[in-house]
Amino acid sequence: MSSVLSDDLKKYIDDNPVFATVATVQPDGSPQLSVTWIACEGDHLVFSTTVGRRKEKNLRRDPRITVLINPPNAPYTYAEVRGTADITFEGGNELIDELARKYTGKDYADFNPAAAEDAERVVVRVLPRKVVGNL
Amino acid sequence: MSSVLSDDLKKYIDDNPVFATVATVQPDGSPQLSVTWIACEGDHLVFSTTVGRRKEKNLRRDPRITVLINPPNAPYTYAEVRGTADITFEGGNELIDELARKYTGKDYADFNPAAAEDAERVVVRVLPRKVVGNL
Repeated sequence: MSSVLSDDLKKYIDDNPVFATVATVQPDGSPQLSVTWIACEGDHLVFSTTVGRRKEKNLRRDPRITVLINPPNAPYTYAEVRGTADITFEGGNELIDELARKYTGKDYADFNPAAAEDAERVVVRVLPRKVVGNL
Repeated sequence: MSSVLSDDLKKYIDDNPVFATVATVQPDGSPQLSVTWIACEGDHLVFSTTVGRRKEKNLRRDPRITVLINPPNAPYTYAEVRGTADITFEGGNELIDELARKYTGKDYADFNPAAAEDAERVVVRVLPRKVVGNL
């Protein structure tokens, strides 16, 4: 247990296109889950979403978030990162391209030609409060 | 969107040792995540845990649960199953052996020799209320 991301966890995320599972809080208090591309930025985790998506709406109402990293080739190892999310418009388009190159080898518009129809891109920056797990 | 598990989802879970991500509600209302073996039982999802684990304690206090199925070889497909959990002692040892055979090819005690030290095994039975996703 650590109050911040370990160097091993940051290196794992930097080096691997691992899909993260993100949990937010629904208006009724129940958990909402989705899968996302993820990166590290200093001591934060960052991911991309668009305005109006369920997780974006949930996080604006209640910024508490939990992110699970569970390597598919080592399924009994995991890191559960509990923290709070901050949402910004700045850098939204740069981040989705950075993530698309990490996960697909392409810019986002080449991976997803329908992207031009998307609502505005935002950066979700997760400030970790506590990390549980063995990764 | 469907009110119950689709036949395709049930078949996928029956046929594949896919790891599920389970979200419960912490005492403070924030989401808690863990990874688990999973099976179908009729129109329910079932998984195993032991008395006193964080998710077991959370579910006894607040039975709302969300389960994510996200095939590692098809990471852009998923099913997010939202529902409520019922916890029973009956069948706890049988279920962990059934799951161990599905995921490891062994009885649980052979996969995890420390199992004899575990607290009592329970069955968590998830009654789906809503399924979101493309799996």
